Amino acid sequence: MTAEILAVGTELLMGQIANTNAQYISSKLPDTRVYVYYHQVVGDNPQRLKDTLLHSLGRSDVIIMTGGLGPTMDDMTKETVAACFGKKLVLDEESLSRIKARMTGYGVSIMPKNNERQAYFPEGAAIMKNDNGTAPGCIINEGGKIIIMLPGPPSEMRPMFDISVMPYLAQFTEYRLESKFLRVFGVGESRLEDMLKDIIEAQTNPTIATYAKEGALCRNSN
Amino acid sequence: MTAEILAVGTELLMGQIANTNAQYISSKLPDTRVYVYYHQVVGDNPQRLKDTLLHSLGRSDVIIMTGGLGPTMDDMTKETVAACFGKKLVLDEESLSRIKARMTGYGVSIMPKNNERQAYFPEGAAIMKNDNGTAPGCIINEGGKIIIMLPGPPSEMRPMFDISVMPYLAQFTEYRLESKFLRVFGVGESRLEDMLKDIIEAQTNPTIATYAKEGALCRNSN
Repeated sequence: MTAEILAVGTELLMGQIANTNAQYISSKLPDTRVYVYYHQVVGDNPQRLKDTLLHSLGRSDVIIMTGGLGPTMDDMTKETVAACFGKKLVLDEESLSRIKARMTGYGVSIMPKNNERQAYFPEGAAIMKNDNGTAPGCIINEGGKIIIMLPGPPSEMRPMFDISVMPYLAQFTEYRLESKFLRVFGVGESRLEDMLKDIIEAQTNPTIATYAKEGALCRNSN
Repeated sequence: MTAEILAVGTELLMGQIANTNAQYISSKLPDTRVYVYYHQVVGDNPQRLKDTLLHSLGRSDVIIMTGGLGPTMDDMTKETVAACFGKKLVLDEESLSRIKARMTGYGVSIMPKNNERQAYFPEGAAIMKNDNGTAPGCIINEGGKIIIMLPGPPSEMRPMFDISVMPYLAQFTEYRLESKFLRVFGVGESRLEDMLKDIIEAQTNPTIATYAKEGALCRNSN
């Protein structure tokens, strides 16, 4: 699958920080056979974000977005993605409870109204909880396109990417290498090879090899 | 003027390095009133580079490119820009001499043929010499679009940007703030203000203020 990484944040365009999120994500994706063809950065501007997102949707299978999930009005990633797909934003009660609990943990007794925005997601999105901040992430998979929305702060983005996104992407990588050992008892290796000859010679999917191993005793606990 | 920064290099898409060039350039541009609306990264792929460049040309006045000016076949920035503008690449003899001298300085007696590519530029480009490597940069200004091509290694990109690009961009920034002191001798401040009253009150362009200063004596050496 082809992918691109789209970071949202005027602070990147002002040169206040480098886009290390794109580097981090890019360095992980070769393991999944998801191919990154582009990185992009766009500011906190709804029209330019929408234009960029539509352009990306036209050329890539997977768009991994970072940033724009905060509580303030200039955080507009979910709103813009929802608009591109003609979806509404809907409240997720579990996320709201988690955000409230986190704010209480910060010593905030009455949660600012703004933080409620972080519990709204495009309809049908899979939600990724955030153990390191208030902004949950989410994933939309629709019409052959996958949009992954991650928070901007690296301390929140990295664990969410590792714990939630990597396993999610693994399921779509048609070339993911998986190996299984089948233990066969009581048949010698050459005889086994004879029995499996047609699929061993084909060497398509799966590819098969036989190994002889001594001392692999049959025990009751197996 | 609106601008975007377009980095070329598969190593960025693999996450081997972060795009610190974009951060560096972005941090400098607020001084010039050139507004950066996008960062992009694309790999060493001629078709995707061309598509990206054409898209950028459609939305921005200035495109600052980094990378893809090296001697090998996967360095194709100048070729792609030339193709987008329907231009040929032409040899610049002075650049060739400088590259040869630099290779000699490296202890290379016969310059590899590949390095000659670094002395070719799109017709009509302004060339920026590189005192820190073999890849000169260049600028095309045509049809209301400015394309600035800089080498990828930060140790080459940064000085070239500071020495050549910043003064170049300054000439196009209609709002550049310039201040001049006019020293007036023998007229008191209030009298001077009276004499300049019409343009002081207008406060358009230029804006004028008067200051009194003691001890600014007239000397022969002035």
